[in-house]
Amino acid sequence: MKKLNLFLTTVLLSVSYTINAQLPDPGLVIDEHTAIVITDPQNDFLSKDGVAWGLVGPSVEKNNTIDNIETLFKLGEQFNIPVFISPHFVFKHDQKWDSKGSMIQFAHNVNLFSKEDPIDNRNYDGSGADFLNQYKKYIKKSNVTVTSPHKVFGPESNDLILQLRKQKINKVVLAGMLSNLCTEAHLRELMEQGFEVGVVKDATAAAILPNMDGYETALVNYALIASHVFTTEEVKSDIVNFYSK
Amino acid sequence: MKKLNLFLTTVLLSVSYTINAQLPDPGLVIDEHTAIVITDPQNDFLSKDGVAWGLVGPSVEKNNTIDNIETLFKLGEQFNIPVFISPHFVFKHDQKWDSKGSMIQFAHNVNLFSKEDPIDNRNYDGSGADFLNQYKKYIKKSNVTVTSPHKVFGPESNDLILQLRKQKINKVVLAGMLSNLCTEAHLRELMEQGFEVGVVKDATAAAILPNMDGYETALVNYALIASHVFTTEEVKSDIVNFYSK
Amino acid sequence: MKKLNLFLTTVLLSVSYTINAQLPDPGLVIDEHTAIVITDPQNDFLSKDGVAWGLVGPSVEKNNTIDNIETLFKLGEQFNIPVFISPHFVFKHDQKWDSKGSMIQFAHNVNLFSKEDPIDNRNYDGSGADFLNQYKKYIKKSNVTVTSPHKVFGPESNDLILQLRKQKINKVVLAGMLSNLCTEAHLRELMEQGFEVGVVKDATAAAILPNMDGYETALVNYALIASHVFTTEEVKSDIVNFYSK
Amino acid sequence: MKKLNLFLTTVLLSVSYTINAQLPDPGLVIDEHTAIVITDPQNDFLSKDGVAWGLVGPSVEKNNTIDNIETLFKLGEQFNIPVFISPHFVFKHDQKWDSKGSMIQFAHNVNLFSKEDPIDNRNYDGSGADFLNQYKKYIKKSNVTVTSPHKVFGPESNDLILQLRKQKINKVVLAGMLSNLCTEAHLRELMEQGFEVGVVKDATAAAILPNMDGYETALVNYALIASHVFTTEEVKSDIVNFYSK
Repeated sequence: MKKLNLFLTTVLLSVSYTINAQLPDPGLVIDEHTAIVITDPQNDFLSKDGVAWGLVGPSVEKNNTIDNIETLFKLGEQFNIPVFISPHFVFKHDQKWDSKGSMIQFAHNVNLFSKEDPIDNRNYDGSGADFLNQYKKYIKKSNVTVTSPHKVFGPESNDLILQLRKQKINKVVLAGMLSNLCTEAHLRELMEQGFEVGVVKDATAAAILPNMDGYETALVNYALIASHVFTTEEVKSDIVNFYSK
Repeated sequence: MKKLNLFLTTVLLSVSYTINAQLPDPGLVIDEHTAIVITDPQNDFLSKDGVAWGLVGPSVEKNNTIDNIETLFKLGEQFNIPVFISPHFVFKHDQKWDSKGSMIQFAHNVNLFSKEDPIDNRNYDGSGADFLNQYKKYIKKSNVTVTSPHKVFGPESNDLILQLRKQKINKVVLAGMLSNLCTEAHLRELMEQGFEVGVVKDATAAAILPNMDGYETALVNYALIASHVFTTEEVKSDIVNFYSK
Repeated sequence: MKKLNLFLTTVLLSVSYTINAQLPDPGLVIDEHTAIVITDPQNDFLSKDGVAWGLVGPSVEKNNTIDNIETLFKLGEQFNIPVFISPHFVFKHDQKWDSKGSMIQFAHNVNLFSKEDPIDNRNYDGSGADFLNQYKKYIKKSNVTVTSPHKVFGPESNDLILQLRKQKINKVVLAGMLSNLCTEAHLRELMEQGFEVGVVKDATAAAILPNMDGYETALVNYALIASHVFTTEEVKSDIVNFYSK
Repeated sequence: MKKLNLFLTTVLLSVSYTINAQLPDPGLVIDEHTAIVITDPQNDFLSKDGVAWGLVGPSVEKNNTIDNIETLFKLGEQFNIPVFISPHFVFKHDQKWDSKGSMIQFAHNVNLFSKEDPIDNRNYDGSGADFLNQYKKYIKKSNVTVTSPHKVFGPESNDLILQLRKQKINKVVLAGMLSNLCTEAHLRELMEQGFEVGVVKDATAAAILPNMDGYETALVNYALIASHVFTTEEVKSDIVNFYSK
């Protein structure tokens, strides 16, 4: 490893660029075209009764994710910032899918985010697919838009991009669950669609397993892909500063 | 960490599911609707003269990526399997972009994959944007389709999905550069579009930096997102078996 | 006009091609990868109490659209053909859109397809957004998938494409409302995504106004864009033949 | 017909809305986030030697399309307005497509917009796929971005949307060829992506055949779908007014 670092350093210096020292940080300047996007703030990930709590609870608790997401909801309400929630629902008819990737198969197996269909909301209230109770009072407010559900990990098959564009949003403060799956998928697709995206790294969490730390994985890709990586405190400070001008 | 593992194991067993033991592996069965997709098999990543060789060369050499990608090209030619190349070009006019994520800004800064525009190919031959010389004889063959370039990391803004569908492809064997950026972006978008995707983990490589191992990062996400993860030898064996029936 | 036709004929013959005689008809051969897709089979278009009946009723009655769509639902049930419904809902929060095209603004003005939000289905039963009563018994069957709603005219912001691909569909028999708006938008997007599409021209209808015949308009574009244009009788015959083999 | 109009008028008045009198015209206000987009300004449609001139020449001449498109290019240059060209190329490998809609099959049959592949530009200069000679001096200017080619009719498989977003464009003045196919497909997709779009109805043209008037067809759909329909003189006046402030 020492040899590799030496080699890398030598080569990198030879092209006048030390990427770990100088990885560009384009930054995200909060303005009136900036929205907050939250992925999957739902019971199955965030409630102790949720079907995936065993997998993601430790990371949620370590990052203080639940309170940090609430901070974002509060800021949205306080300053009337557009907030968009992109939920994840698995409908009964999705069980007909002929093929699924690994974690989508897992999700279907354990009935993660199960809901009848796009119209029927029988058994939805308080279910694993429902929003975490402590967020509900924010979600009812008029600054919040709940999009159609995403079906794999990203917003490719819902209306998030359209809803953002229809409110003249071109910058996104992104948070939610799971760091390296739906949240990262939203980061990636938003970047492909030309948005500037800052990720709030402690308002997200992931499954951390032996040899598979989904959170560390996400941090690497956030640093490489996003416009900027914030902590909740940092983005709060930037938002308060902008709206107090 | 021991405590965390214990906690996890307990919880997971309580839902009768140990994910690290039982992470689903849906598998990818090679058939006549399966194509090979290669991202960015271009000089700037794979040639010792390439502008990013200093960053990715060590991983390329460790994985034997150059030969493993060539094995895929050879299999494509031998069995007349559709092969699609999704290249990455940065056109002069892309410098007008008003914002860029971190690594795209880096790419623009160092003139990675620079090409005049979508029509003008002046100075292209042998440039960093050109294909690695040892692949050119395969790329000329009629089984290979070179798509329009992707512009961020994924195929959202090129014709890869359409070209695959127009050849009745619904399964993809995926390889190329960089593991956690363009290759993973293609994996993710192909999954969002309903393809089954198997990634060839040693026919790809990434930048490995202190605290930012792009290759290990990709391996975690491949295991969670893809239909299956192959080695080159494994996929070669499956392909040879299918076409020898 | 005579002069123009003469001119056209001369030029076209000179390239050995008379397009009005020989406009290609690629055809759509029904097979096990063929699905039926219905756009907007909802009260506001198809019920005499619907908010847009005044505009589209005459075309619905002339084409016998309601029965022809029912024939497609019946065929779907009889032969267990996958049927997908892509509905149109206008949520309360869509009223926040900062800009709208002409007919979308009209739709919002007259509360067409109004629904609370993607989860809340209060007041939905029997509303203008609900499905036509005589279709409900078919829609409950397991061969039918109701997608998330489209938000402009096409399936770009819902999960129709994904749901089709996840059932290995690559051919579509398309019908529904309105011929030149949502139905044509679905035709166009499905073609862009590589599907073969046959449109059932009498299982659709449009607003016919002085100087704005939406139905004739659609017929021209169907002939130019689609793989094939069917009548209900023709497609019924092809489906029965295929499934009776 | 009289009876139908009477019926319609009665019903419409009863909902306080006469659509033919009051079809909403949302309007398009030119500002600094407005770009000009031109589809297919290429020889095969606009040059007397073009392979499709026989089909579209009469409409081009009637609308004075060539000069009107040039007026838009001139305005772009004069006021440094971003202009985007979305060309149509049919590559050699596209002949492998297993299925094609009617006019795409026609296009492939007559070698419309034929080009080798996305990189090789051999035989391109002056070909049917090349830009009309009188536009070339404008296209070379730095305000113009030529995107990757679209492959069916719309920009779904090229980078137009991304390039627009990366220059902070959210309004589009649209023109080009053919009115009801590629131009309308761009209108529709831009609307699906949340842009405001004004179409310049005499800076476009279509094939006009007995019983298939592509131009009249387009006018109906423009009026129903777009934010506004301009003449070249009208949009010129609005542009000059905005930039003279």
